[in-house]
Amino acid sequence: MISTITLRVNYSETDQMGVVYHANYLIWFDRARTELMRETGVTYKELEQQGVYLAVSEVKVRYRAAARYDDLVRVRCWVRELASRRVTFGYAVERAATAELLATGETDLVSLTHQHTLTRIPAHVFELLKPVPDPVRV
Amino acid sequence: MISTITLRVNYSETDQMGVVYHANYLIWFDRARTELMRETGVTYKELEQQGVYLAVSEVKVRYRAAARYDDLVRVRCWVRELASRRVTFGYAVERAATAELLATGETDLVSLTHQHTLTRIPAHVFELLKPVPDPVRV
Amino acid sequence: MISTITLRVNYSETDQMGVVYHANYLIWFDRARTELMRETGVTYKELEQQGVYLAVSEVKVRYRAAARYDDLVRVRCWVRELASRRVTFGYAVERAATAELLATGETDLVSLTHQHTLTRIPAHVFELLKPVPDPVRV
Amino acid sequence: MISTITLRVNYSETDQMGVVYHANYLIWFDRARTELMRETGVTYKELEQQGVYLAVSEVKVRYRAAARYDDLVRVRCWVRELASRRVTFGYAVERAATAELLATGETDLVSLTHQHTLTRIPAHVFELLKPVPDPVRV
Repeated sequence: MISTITLRVNYSETDQMGVVYHANYLIWFDRARTELMRETGVTYKELEQQGVYLAVSEVKVRYRAAARYDDLVRVRCWVRELASRRVTFGYAVERAATAELLATGETDLVSLTHQHTLTRIPAHVFELLKPVPDPVRV
Repeated sequence: MISTITLRVNYSETDQMGVVYHANYLIWFDRARTELMRETGVTYKELEQQGVYLAVSEVKVRYRAAARYDDLVRVRCWVRELASRRVTFGYAVERAATAELLATGETDLVSLTHQHTLTRIPAHVFELLKPVPDPVRV
Repeated sequence: MISTITLRVNYSETDQMGVVYHANYLIWFDRARTELMRETGVTYKELEQQGVYLAVSEVKVRYRAAARYDDLVRVRCWVRELASRRVTFGYAVERAATAELLATGETDLVSLTHQHTLTRIPAHVFELLKPVPDPVRV
Repeated sequence: MISTITLRVNYSETDQMGVVYHANYLIWFDRARTELMRETGVTYKELEQQGVYLAVSEVKVRYRAAARYDDLVRVRCWVRELASRRVTFGYAVERAATAELLATGETDLVSLTHQHTLTRIPAHVFELLKPVPDPVRV
């Protein structure tokens, strides 16, 4: 299962190089991950309400081409790996108009209690987060 | 009492117009307000630990000239008005090198409990937040 | 003419008070203004390509209730006032699920050349930006 | 040569988990890298004025412990590797009060012309960017 969101690049996301500032891709990844979880059947909001937090423990991004102001951008997200207390998501960002690959990335998230200690991903969530093969090279 | 902080404009704060994106001034105001409180003798962090939250209820900013990448920028902050459950801060932003006025503004903050209901500003904090005359026209 | 966009509150937009950090509303306003312009028939991107920049010169926001993580939020935007070199936009932010009013605001934008000097709003754009009565009290 | 900056965590950088939102570390890296370049003898601003842009092409971050509101945070930055058209910077983020390691990371930057084509790092800059051994494991 691969989730897709489409975003419009806002002026606030550009920098004086005339392209999207690189840190914004992490926010796009977050948006895509949130929708992937919603589509699998559990929202991250519900997970927090159940006392389980997913905290980003590692991030990798490869920037391949620049996103620009007012571009429509497509972000795909999927589960790459799953362990009892850790889940790795993969991401691919494309310009919607051309399907040009703009960036790929991955984030590792660890499952924490409210007290920030490691905890198992709840069974009903673990079942939903099915790893799939990478649709593009990350 | 007027507090002053000096900031270096980062690349992330610029936009493709080649100037600082306007929303960032609210963050600079926040930084200046935090230091003003620290200098009066109570940190905002301590206030929250005592169960009192100051939430922004109103914002006004007048942008007069553009801040640019790598500029050193000086932000002055002071208390404009004080009521039992509300405090108004004033701000002036200048380019440090030239003292050119870049922006002025004010923010109203209301005092809230953890449950987000209005509450009085604690007496020991109320005593510290002394209104002063505006050093510049806001 | 009143334009409406709907946004999902992302985790990056929250702060440790558990609500949306106040500066993010300016970015929502920007998104709504961009779509209003697109709907009138000229995109802001095209305007810049024609050498005309609209720079925010004044901002006012009244925060009435907190937006929260994962909320769907509706932002309405309209033209309040129009002059030869200045346009004022109004905004209303509501929680989509309940239509509760979360914030209102306005921004003044001035028309600038690439050299950051004041210039007239081009006639074809001026014609499109028709002021309308405020749908809510700003 | 290793450069060090010290930052105060602002409210805007926190999220509802009560810690610094992970994307902000990339901005801290940027701030540290800017100061490293200034200390070597050439500012990034001057480099852009000479028509050379350093664009982030790859990012890796490992988050080890959470930074919190009002923490003083120290960010060290150094050059890890240098090639004719690429430079890799390393970063270590620590809580200033305890020297606890909060995060490590690296970013690859490629040298671009204004037209976004690859170009050699100018000789006078290349001379200044001296790789040093990692002070901590990245």
